[in-house]
Amino acid sequence: MAERKQTLIFKNKPYITSSYSMGGKKEGEGPMRKWFDRCLDDDMYGEKTWEKAESKMLKTAMTEVMKRAGKSKEDVGAILSGDLLNQLMSSSFMARDMHIPFLGMYGACSTMTESLMLGSVLADGRYSNNVIIGASSHYCTAERQFRMPLEHGNQRPPSAQWTATASGAMMLSYENRDDKLESDHKGNIKKLRKVRVECGTIGKVIDAGIKDANQMGSAMAPAAVDTILNHLQDMKRPIDYYDAVFTGDLGFIGKSIVTDLLADAGVDPKILDRVYDDCGTMIYERKQDVHSGGSGCGCSASIFAGYVYKKMVRGELSRVLIMSTGALLSTISPFQGESIPGIAHAISLETE
Amino acid sequence: MAERKQTLIFKNKPYITSSYSMGGKKEGEGPMRKWFDRCLDDDMYGEKTWEKAESKMLKTAMTEVMKRAGKSKEDVGAILSGDLLNQLMSSSFMARDMHIPFLGMYGACSTMTESLMLGSVLADGRYSNNVIIGASSHYCTAERQFRMPLEHGNQRPPSAQWTATASGAMMLSYENRDDKLESDHKGNIKKLRKVRVECGTIGKVIDAGIKDANQMGSAMAPAAVDTILNHLQDMKRPIDYYDAVFTGDLGFIGKSIVTDLLADAGVDPKILDRVYDDCGTMIYERKQDVHSGGSGCGCSASIFAGYVYKKMVRGELSRVLIMSTGALLSTISPFQGESIPGIAHAISLETE
Repeated sequence: MAERKQTLIFKNKPYITSSYSMGGKKEGEGPMRKWFDRCLDDDMYGEKTWEKAESKMLKTAMTEVMKRAGKSKEDVGAILSGDLLNQLMSSSFMARDMHIPFLGMYGACSTMTESLMLGSVLADGRYSNNVIIGASSHYCTAERQFRMPLEHGNQRPPSAQWTATASGAMMLSYENRDDKLESDHKGNIKKLRKVRVECGTIGKVIDAGIKDANQMGSAMAPAAVDTILNHLQDMKRPIDYYDAVFTGDLGFIGKSIVTDLLADAGVDPKILDRVYDDCGTMIYERKQDVHSGGSGCGCSASIFAGYVYKKMVRGELSRVLIMSTGALLSTISPFQGESIPGIAHAISLETE
Repeated sequence: MAERKQTLIFKNKPYITSSYSMGGKKEGEGPMRKWFDRCLDDDMYGEKTWEKAESKMLKTAMTEVMKRAGKSKEDVGAILSGDLLNQLMSSSFMARDMHIPFLGMYGACSTMTESLMLGSVLADGRYSNNVIIGASSHYCTAERQFRMPLEHGNQRPPSAQWTATASGAMMLSYENRDDKLESDHKGNIKKLRKVRVECGTIGKVIDAGIKDANQMGSAMAPAAVDTILNHLQDMKRPIDYYDAVFTGDLGFIGKSIVTDLLADAGVDPKILDRVYDDCGTMIYERKQDVHSGGSGCGCSASIFAGYVYKKMVRGELSRVLIMSTGALLSTISPFQGESIPGIAHAISLETE
């Protein structure tokens, strides 16, 4: 315990038996387009409110992972999910339609790896099986709740990030007997690798004293660095043990802070340059006018459930550390003079 | 799996090694007075805002369980907690001060047994040890967020419940070697029993179609009944296997609905009358002008961590089923025409 204080070891390494990644219109126009399983043409998704659209995106992801794993609702032990909306509106209303035991998670944008952590514990320890985990966010619901009415058309400062309209989900099972095949562009049939969850590091809440709610990357970066360093120390690993390390949604500013802080801690910047990236910098093109990059629970959820998972099953990445990052401010805490606490949870994935 | 679909079995039955229960001024004037470890004289608790006061109450409970278990921050594997405030303000700011790995939970007023469920999994499977779980609520923060400004002095309908100003926390460990002693009022020294977590039933989200946010008991009662019946079926037990069964905060109306629905399901009303009670009906006297009873995460958190835990260590209760109940509405879902989804998670406790 004392040695691996923050890191949970999954002895049975549960399998991610299926995964689904969904984006909105703008996300489908970005560089991740081909990695999403589906992108919307209209972010309303046939619903009357943005909140219902977001909830439906999460439900689609949940339903699709079930379908892809060949499981029915009766096979699913539990759903663990969360989102940015007050009282987890997207998740709660998704769960109402699912009739599956449900546990709501809140870690702001760190929710994807938080639910992956606890879902893995449930499956690894055989407490539950075929556990579905996931997270979502929607630009319009987040703007309405955290910032300004969209109709107001306010200017966004260069440090602001764009909340991704996206959802991601995964199913965790303690066995995976099905070999999946895929044909490449030349028509060659290839056996897909299986992805397993090896261990996870629960983050501490770190507050660097940032008070500007348009500086989320700066607020979360120290928490990400704390979790990475504790993870590497707990597991006695160098950072390039991993083929790739991804933070959730620090954006361009946060990513450069992480790079600097890790260099200060003795990590070789050349190695970092090779292995480290941030979902917030990956999800949009610079020309998409998103300023400092993407954010929101759905940003890392959709990239981990899409890009990362697919790269792993195809054998392009073998060992990956994924880490969603959250800013735990509330809508009223800044008015009470509070700075922004950050948190990040890391999960080590590997292929077999 | 198929047989015990919603119920997780804790093979090692983790121990609740310490517990702490805190109430506000009004709670200290009620029938639970002697079961709280501490009650405030002033619900501001020396802080400048209600939100900070609530967060401090949660922090006090967390710190006290650590102290009572003789553990330091370094010994604590993780904190799992939640509250009713947007973005879990009370928990997030509590966790900022603790420097302990943190996982935020949201299940509205079901949060106490949700965090007890996942904390028990972590300790039972030896993923983590000395896990602290807890929840809080505060009348003034909840009124501000969910209802009306307090200064407005609005009239509350008879079906409304009073959000408890209270917090509760427990520590979960996979071993408990310390025998604790207590002297009774006659000065006789008695060995206290140890409380263990036996199993837990994760609830499904159930929506009975209630749209009135002043009818929380009615909205949550069907979820409580669903969880109780699934628990009893999963474990093949009659309800009087337990010395006592407690729901979280259904209040007088919700409790009577549960009694009726369970009677419809074939449970003998005489047995129910003997074993079943609801924290929302226990925390205040009728004359305290709380209409349909207490509510809020802190209601069941403080009664489970105070009254129930103490009754168990003293040997007055041996097998108890506790079940916090949550109404998963959001502050905007009623405006979008949504009804109120309910959820309830059950935990079986036993003494050794």
